[in-house]
Amino acid sequence: MSTIADVASRAGVSKATASRALSGRGYVSEKTRRRVMDAADALAYVAHSSATSLATGRTQTVGLVMPPIDRWFFAELLAGVQESLLALDYDLSLYGVPEGSQTRERLFETVLPGRRFDGIIAVGIQPSARELERLHRTGRPLVSVGPYSEGSSAVSIDDTAAARIATEHLIELGHADIAFVGGSTDTGELSYGDEQRLDGYHGALRAAGLDAHARVVGAAPTMPGGYTAAAGLLGDRRNRPTAIVGVCDEAAIGAIIAARRLGIAVPTELSVVGIDDHEHADMFALTTIGQSPREQGHEAVRLLTRRMDEPEAPLERVSAPSSLVVRSSTAPPR
Amino acid sequence: MSTIADVASRAGVSKATASRALSGRGYVSEKTRRRVMDAADALAYVAHSSATSLATGRTQTVGLVMPPIDRWFFAELLAGVQESLLALDYDLSLYGVPEGSQTRERLFETVLPGRRFDGIIAVGIQPSARELERLHRTGRPLVSVGPYSEGSSAVSIDDTAAARIATEHLIELGHADIAFVGGSTDTGELSYGDEQRLDGYHGALRAAGLDAHARVVGAAPTMPGGYTAAAGLLGDRRNRPTAIVGVCDEAAIGAIIAARRLGIAVPTELSVVGIDDHEHADMFALTTIGQSPREQGHEAVRLLTRRMDEPEAPLERVSAPSSLVVRSSTAPPR
Repeated sequence: MSTIADVASRAGVSKATASRALSGRGYVSEKTRRRVMDAADALAYVAHSSATSLATGRTQTVGLVMPPIDRWFFAELLAGVQESLLALDYDLSLYGVPEGSQTRERLFETVLPGRRFDGIIAVGIQPSARELERLHRTGRPLVSVGPYSEGSSAVSIDDTAAARIATEHLIELGHADIAFVGGSTDTGELSYGDEQRLDGYHGALRAAGLDAHARVVGAAPTMPGGYTAAAGLLGDRRNRPTAIVGVCDEAAIGAIIAARRLGIAVPTELSVVGIDDHEHADMFALTTIGQSPREQGHEAVRLLTRRMDEPEAPLERVSAPSSLVVRSSTAPPR
Repeated sequence: MSTIADVASRAGVSKATASRALSGRGYVSEKTRRRVMDAADALAYVAHSSATSLATGRTQTVGLVMPPIDRWFFAELLAGVQESLLALDYDLSLYGVPEGSQTRERLFETVLPGRRFDGIIAVGIQPSARELERLHRTGRPLVSVGPYSEGSSAVSIDDTAAARIATEHLIELGHADIAFVGGSTDTGELSYGDEQRLDGYHGALRAAGLDAHARVVGAAPTMPGGYTAAAGLLGDRRNRPTAIVGVCDEAAIGAIIAARRLGIAVPTELSVVGIDDHEHADMFALTTIGQSPREQGHEAVRLLTRRMDEPEAPLERVSAPSSLVVRSSTAPPR
């Protein structure tokens, strides 16, 4: 088996240069990198992560625990975490939180404690006290994306504020009859932050003296969920709200599609606002509260590596930016 | 540090039973499992994957290489792979194929060969000959989902047949002017199977003597991609096709949304057919060719574990099932 010294010698460079070229960490000119690659190729050289591990005492692996990712937010966040880890030459072990409670228990009780990684990022899973205790017992740094958990650094937008701002935007336009679509309390839905968003909606109505008008229609945080809920809500002509806040853009887009099918014009007859600035928001001209889950993925990795480097550093709670993006799905009521 | 013998002794069961209860592999009654868990808890017992590794010579880890997963197919496939690996007590190391060519080269040249796992699943990445050679040099079994690669087992639907059947369905209804939306040849799009789907469309037209009517509008395989392409295609009233085949359901749904905005009734004035049976297909009453990427994820793990257990076993090429699902987005032309 060839060593890195063999590769360096064949390429006519120092071991340090060969190491930089092969790991991709640190600067090497394109020409030198090519020469080292060719030498490694000729010698069938393969770097060994186990060697890295022995030298540093690290596994160079981060565990990521998150719900099934078939939602834009999670897909984007995962992409951000991957980008940052690849740049740092870290591996990602992905653990989907399963839906059944028994499999979920197995994950926290036996799978995660038995694995070797340098740190854990938990995304939108709201671990129970016992699950959290299990994670902390592993002695590895923990970063949360979403709900703050004791003993971990965390990053997220202020979901309460996001929904409050979305609702206030409608109130400022003159709407008084504003419904909220989403906020399902089904425990099977691990919907990160949705509860806080519902709180923000109620808070804005209360502050404007519109409590009595609050209307919440339970819906899965998806396009079909918003579609079905809005179709029911808008079906009754005499009791129709003039505006809708979607728990997320997917639900808001579902509401727009339902309105169009019922022949209700957006925004002249119905205003709709979402939260997220989903990749499809522009296509539906959706007014929304923008956030970047990809940036939050980068931030989570930064928080984690800081804690891995300085285990005694204070915990950090980072509020990710979010802001109102006005498109043309909102207007004053007729 | 407690051992599994301590846990077994405290719980009053054999070591084998304690091991089954803790690993989740093999049958244990709920009552016994609970007793073992409580004993492990009281003793702060944590299983060590490194011990597993020394005993079996395996890392209990599978590497999954796939494009950024912000597309329904990949999210579903990932969920299927995760379900199967969790049941087998395997870990998943996820490698997103980056978009830049230099980062991609680093992934195949230095990252993947340096990692330790028992096998690799490559999803829809169409590795170059050199990348494939790099993967094979690691000596670990390889399973592809999507395009067949030499030296690997593989699973996918027959994309050519899927698009041919979708197109034939329109021809049988009496359509002659059928456009294909998708089939972007932009190398930045790592769109699995899309090229074969375009072939299937052309094949069906050729067989029906309709070659001269072929119209392909390039589009990203997404809802906004299909929307934009269809909006352009349908804008010219005098040169409008009577039917559209979407490269995937996302593109087909985008086309339906574009048609509605232009006041074109589906299916009376325009038929639309997709491929995938995406979770949103039902909401748009989309006729499509159904497939289950989640099942393909399970199948990929089955193919991989078979090759890990029997390295000399012959390679397998599994054709996943797909079939026409008729909803109400297709009808005879007026």
